[in-house]
Amino acid sequence: MNNFEFKNPTKVIFGKDTIAKLSEEIPADAKVLLLYGGGSIKKNGIYDQVKTALSNVNVTEFGGIPANPEYAVLMEALKVIKDKEITYLLAVGGGSVIDGTKFLSAAALYDGDTPWDILTQNIKTEKGMPFGTVLTLPATGSEMNSGSVITRKETQEKLAMGGPGLFPVFSILDPQVITSIPERQLANGLTDAFTHVLEQYMTYPIGARLQDRFAESILQTLIEVAPNVIKDPTDYKAAADFMWSCTMALNGLIQKGVPTDWAVHAIGHELTAMFGIDHARTLAVIAPSHYKFNFEAKKEKLAQYAERVWNVTEGSIDDKAYAAIEKTEAFFKELGIDTKLSDYTGDYEGTAEKISKRFTDRGWEGLGEHQSLTPDNVEKIVKMAY
Amino acid sequence: MNNFEFKNPTKVIFGKDTIAKLSEEIPADAKVLLLYGGGSIKKNGIYDQVKTALSNVNVTEFGGIPANPEYAVLMEALKVIKDKEITYLLAVGGGSVIDGTKFLSAAALYDGDTPWDILTQNIKTEKGMPFGTVLTLPATGSEMNSGSVITRKETQEKLAMGGPGLFPVFSILDPQVITSIPERQLANGLTDAFTHVLEQYMTYPIGARLQDRFAESILQTLIEVAPNVIKDPTDYKAAADFMWSCTMALNGLIQKGVPTDWAVHAIGHELTAMFGIDHARTLAVIAPSHYKFNFEAKKEKLAQYAERVWNVTEGSIDDKAYAAIEKTEAFFKELGIDTKLSDYTGDYEGTAEKISKRFTDRGWEGLGEHQSLTPDNVEKIVKMAY
Repeated sequence: MNNFEFKNPTKVIFGKDTIAKLSEEIPADAKVLLLYGGGSIKKNGIYDQVKTALSNVNVTEFGGIPANPEYAVLMEALKVIKDKEITYLLAVGGGSVIDGTKFLSAAALYDGDTPWDILTQNIKTEKGMPFGTVLTLPATGSEMNSGSVITRKETQEKLAMGGPGLFPVFSILDPQVITSIPERQLANGLTDAFTHVLEQYMTYPIGARLQDRFAESILQTLIEVAPNVIKDPTDYKAAADFMWSCTMALNGLIQKGVPTDWAVHAIGHELTAMFGIDHARTLAVIAPSHYKFNFEAKKEKLAQYAERVWNVTEGSIDDKAYAAIEKTEAFFKELGIDTKLSDYTGDYEGTAEKISKRFTDRGWEGLGEHQSLTPDNVEKIVKMAY
Repeated sequence: MNNFEFKNPTKVIFGKDTIAKLSEEIPADAKVLLLYGGGSIKKNGIYDQVKTALSNVNVTEFGGIPANPEYAVLMEALKVIKDKEITYLLAVGGGSVIDGTKFLSAAALYDGDTPWDILTQNIKTEKGMPFGTVLTLPATGSEMNSGSVITRKETQEKLAMGGPGLFPVFSILDPQVITSIPERQLANGLTDAFTHVLEQYMTYPIGARLQDRFAESILQTLIEVAPNVIKDPTDYKAAADFMWSCTMALNGLIQKGVPTDWAVHAIGHELTAMFGIDHARTLAVIAPSHYKFNFEAKKEKLAQYAERVWNVTEGSIDDKAYAAIEKTEAFFKELGIDTKLSDYTGDYEGTAEKISKRFTDRGWEGLGEHQSLTPDNVEKIVKMAY
């Protein structure tokens, strides 16, 4: 096991009808900015629950944060924070709203030239404006971690940020929220969480037995509950397992002490930036090609995953490892998630070269658990995903 | 899944040669009370490492905290805290030293009549004096939770306390510390952590798939590493898996959203108070009888445990459940841990009645996941363990 440090101070409030607990978590004298997305929370009743819980608190609202939270929109929200002297942020939404809120938490207290620096200069936020979340879409794990990914349309960029000051103070997770989520989004959430685990697990064996088993536990749970989540989101047991699995998939725990990959995300982000493909779907496009391309380096863990998660007991290491990739791709497809770039756009020629060049232009640091993938490797992986 | 709240703010610093990081965690202007046990840390080099790391900090020492931390001894330490105007506590030891330090953290800021009230009146500590830990014996999980158990010889009592203010600020976990731990203590640690998981898992199925799998992951890991930990504590990989498993076994995570039992601990504590039997060994004495006595109520989970953890694939639910109890008892015995009270004392007649009466005298609340065990049940369980 590698040395590691782990600290996650977010208070999780999990379960049925927990949104009412908001009133206990936000200081009575706070000046709150309530942030949300396209307005679905006004149709599904979550907005009303939040407003009722906050009836005695000073609340300003800022809606319209888009999927892949957009820098220009967030800068408008930042202006509201300054103008209204906001002291507390509340994200009501999925990963995009929460990620956008993290950016605002950092930007609100940033005293450099422009908040864009936080993203381009990789500034770790030690202290942000306090914020809580009410999660409306299980997927990204952003509700219990300190990371965020922000998009800037102007430059077609999607950049990561974070820091120990950006954990939510609290996150309310009521699994009942999934009853109003469209099937497409539920499939995205399952795929996103599943791939988060793979990025922290599908590397090479270093004998961190507990982390491996925790990762496998999340994968097994997602596989088991996926059909019910899609077919009947009112199945509370399945919804609760789904929601908690998504959170545990990316709250830092399973990545501690082990090598991690994250190349699938790095490449996938470019596909979202270039084509607007849903984040989760870009992961399903890149992951199988990535594992095939890096087969030799990853086959031991692939075989372990085949055995423990997919119950593949026959065959050689290579056979099992290959079966694992096939099972994974089949799982995505059963969720209705296409796994080839050409399923999403006819205009894919030249994409591989373009992505490779982008990485090079930004200063190549190498991708994957060994930081050994070259721009040429990335080009080949993307081409395999056409 | 049941509703739950989860927050664990302890910073874990895990790995080889991490004790030196103490200097980064304790404020330079702190007045530190360094607490330890019988002095083994002076022989195994840990004391020197701690002193070196704290060479620029104002440190007072208090050694001699016994196993099952004794109230009278802790009251002496409390006097030192007041006299020296201590502002920060540092526990260097196993669960007993850390539990004792938690009591002191609470007592130092308690403004009631006597700190004994914290234990007898079940007062939850919202804010304690800040403290860190350097773990020298993986077992209790106290390094990453907010609970503590204190013993008072005078009254032969062993009482629990805790509260959100009693999480360590940080805990340093260097698996290399186990190289100097006697085999007996290593066996205790394995048994203690194993039973912690059982208490949070061996109840009845409620469909919390991820919590079940996490619990099973810890059990599987402990079973796998146990022979190496005992045979060769210098096997760093095994030591690291062991240490991290002990912490994860009782940091709150796996008990969230599920029913928990804790009857084994409640009864076991009485055996320690009456006979001075090592805590872990009392658990190994009580657990098998407890599971046999409550067989009908627990057999579904026992069978699941048999299948997933012990790979028992043949037989009925009852067969598997029974096999699970046998496998568990055999596991303890392989560690050199006896599982009958008569293995520890010849003077056991009347113990069952005495324990049952103690529970009754203290005001009976019912034990087990349904709070349904009666004093009469407890008497029978203890007799089965003779």
